[in-house]
Amino acid sequence: MPENAQFALAPPNRAVLACLNAERLWHRVQTLAGFTDAQRPWTRRAFSALHAQSRDWLRGQMQEAGLQTSLDAAGNLIGRRPGRRADAAPLVTGSHCDTVMDGGRFDGIIGVLAGIEFAHALHDAQVQLDHPLEVIDFLSEEPSDYGISCVGSRGMTGLLDDAMLASARLDGETLAQGMVRVGAAPDRLQTALRGKGDTAAFVELHIEQGPVLETRGLPIGVVSHIVGIRRVALTVTGRPDHAGTTPMDLRRDALVGAARLIEGAHARAQALAAGTDYVVATVGRLDMTPNVPNAVPGHVELVLEVRSDNDQVLAGFPEAVLAGTAEGLKALRVSVDMRELSRSRPTACDPDVMRVIEAASSGLGYASAVLPSGAGHDAAYMARSGPMGMVFIPCRDGRSHCPEEWTEPEQLMDGARVLAASLMHLDVARP
Amino acid sequence: MPENAQFALAPPNRAVLACLNAERLWHRVQTLAGFTDAQRPWTRRAFSALHAQSRDWLRGQMQEAGLQTSLDAAGNLIGRRPGRRADAAPLVTGSHCDTVMDGGRFDGIIGVLAGIEFAHALHDAQVQLDHPLEVIDFLSEEPSDYGISCVGSRGMTGLLDDAMLASARLDGETLAQGMVRVGAAPDRLQTALRGKGDTAAFVELHIEQGPVLETRGLPIGVVSHIVGIRRVALTVTGRPDHAGTTPMDLRRDALVGAARLIEGAHARAQALAAGTDYVVATVGRLDMTPNVPNAVPGHVELVLEVRSDNDQVLAGFPEAVLAGTAEGLKALRVSVDMRELSRSRPTACDPDVMRVIEAASSGLGYASAVLPSGAGHDAAYMARSGPMGMVFIPCRDGRSHCPEEWTEPEQLMDGARVLAASLMHLDVARP
Repeated sequence: MPENAQFALAPPNRAVLACLNAERLWHRVQTLAGFTDAQRPWTRRAFSALHAQSRDWLRGQMQEAGLQTSLDAAGNLIGRRPGRRADAAPLVTGSHCDTVMDGGRFDGIIGVLAGIEFAHALHDAQVQLDHPLEVIDFLSEEPSDYGISCVGSRGMTGLLDDAMLASARLDGETLAQGMVRVGAAPDRLQTALRGKGDTAAFVELHIEQGPVLETRGLPIGVVSHIVGIRRVALTVTGRPDHAGTTPMDLRRDALVGAARLIEGAHARAQALAAGTDYVVATVGRLDMTPNVPNAVPGHVELVLEVRSDNDQVLAGFPEAVLAGTAEGLKALRVSVDMRELSRSRPTACDPDVMRVIEAASSGLGYASAVLPSGAGHDAAYMARSGPMGMVFIPCRDGRSHCPEEWTEPEQLMDGARVLAASLMHLDVARP
Repeated sequence: MPENAQFALAPPNRAVLACLNAERLWHRVQTLAGFTDAQRPWTRRAFSALHAQSRDWLRGQMQEAGLQTSLDAAGNLIGRRPGRRADAAPLVTGSHCDTVMDGGRFDGIIGVLAGIEFAHALHDAQVQLDHPLEVIDFLSEEPSDYGISCVGSRGMTGLLDDAMLASARLDGETLAQGMVRVGAAPDRLQTALRGKGDTAAFVELHIEQGPVLETRGLPIGVVSHIVGIRRVALTVTGRPDHAGTTPMDLRRDALVGAARLIEGAHARAQALAAGTDYVVATVGRLDMTPNVPNAVPGHVELVLEVRSDNDQVLAGFPEAVLAGTAEGLKALRVSVDMRELSRSRPTACDPDVMRVIEAASSGLGYASAVLPSGAGHDAAYMARSGPMGMVFIPCRDGRSHCPEEWTEPEQLMDGARVLAASLMHLDVARP
């Protein structure tokens, strides 16, 4: 598509935007959020009975919006509206309707429901796009009870390997068995259901889950990258001595060593984040033994996570923290071992899709900023099947994955309008 | 007693020392240690059936050593050998035969068994002291399942209050109920069983539980103080944000704050320990939420323990750590609350008893050093009933409260000889 294309919408498309119904959308969001474990709002875990009920309801909403529904072999619920060009790859939007434990009312579901709202508006306005349109509720984007996240989008793009399918939850059920239970066919996932070029474009609407848009007073974020994530386990080994009888100069305190690593990672991430790369680093998990008040800690295990849009940062971060703290840890006579837990590379959004989203935003009168996504999304996997982009809207105080997660109805509608306009522009621009 | 008294032993007392039987003592130590939970050596918890069995055996050993046995209202097993002076307060020695979970084979029991060995040698040599001699197996010196330590020595000296007696273990049984179950009479502990002056002197033999004697190649330690212990809970409150989407400059990471407190406490204790006071400080317990790799820690609770022979150090230590880290924590936008958990004052050993132990050691040809006890002991409570001292012997690598805890038979015998000689000197010196 031309770099300086005009992004004025044709009259039928303006009619579609006029048919977007803020009340209907908000009502659906509150209804879907209401499918929650009553004891732990807002919780709707993938593979639960509650999740199945919410999907039954969602299927009905898709059909009400004129979509033909189906479940693919990876367990994704797909609503499809045919295009004028039967041979064209579909324009795809969507997100997920599962939540973490004690999560929020917006993460995931607004991407599905804004997609349905766009389809409903096309239906109401009786407009047919050139491309088929698909709205997808991906299966289990959040880390599932089997320990695997983005089950549906990985499965759709051929990235759900046998080891993942064999992962078991506490009661012994494997992911493959769980998928069969919800109607998927994991034995058909040896090759990608959708390969490169099978998606005309993929655009996902999501809350930012961070404070940047709110802090800057912006209604729309145009995502540039989905960060890569590297996690390492750092095991600090000292000696578990009696805390009363072991003089300071004879102890080997693993927790003091861990404190130096925590401070070192924090300082390094702060310094790097002052540059042009997006860098955040967190020690979010710490376990130690003996963990009693009267014993010198002998053993501490930390999980250090670093996220960046620059793969070089991921490649060197934990190593640099270890190098920077080596002298201090040697003085404490503690040792550190590093074990790689996981590593994903950053995924760049498609520059053309980004330009479309930016232009759609400005065409609708919205200020926007380009920013990376610090969280993982189904979009990172869907990028394998075609050009990918994401639209962010602000959430209050940047909070997410907690009951306080909130976005205003107007903010949601801003995002739905930008999503719809972007997809209609892509319908013209994409082959 | 005169400050420069000659500590030569009279011939009958030299005969007693010659009757100390290293093999008999070592065999008893190994036999008593063998009363252990087979799955978790070396574990013999107070109030357990195993503890009761070991006491039955211990009662037999006391009787074999010529001691008259009884159980007092605080649950202490007492073996008594009459003195020539029926009106004199007793010379008392002893320690405890309960252990921590996964403890060692020497902590506590050597103090009881060396006392019995001394009584046995008096019996074999047919020597009667002026003072009555008592060997006490104190009830539950280690923190019991009810959360209270030094049950027997607190109870004997009137320091087991109603709140402690009402402490319950997990199955709901209170300490008072547990004490009744093992034959004690907690309702008779409203006043001290033994008040000031009721003990002519108390001397306890114990492994050092630290590395100082071994490091310095010394067979005997003369304890100067039993340290005071102050424990505070430090609660660091930040905000539990998404670890991927919250930029470094907008987060409030409670764990980074905790790291600064841990480092601050360590640095301060190191600096103070370089002076004349005994000072150790430890953050031995840390709990945090959410404690997952992808969340910024919002809440960390630390237990900071400081021990010293100087009460002024205890009084100001946590406050100084907070003051020294205040700026760094403010920069992180985290807050800290401090809550007092417990505080005991240092207990000084009696200078005359210390001199007797030092002189007994040098009279037997042993080099010794004066050092504080970093661990708590029954002796700290017995100091309320009369002059108190402690004899330490080395333990391998300074390890204690673990299966590796070890002392050699010869090292144990060194301690038993010093204990016996000290008690015989005190028999002469004390009114």
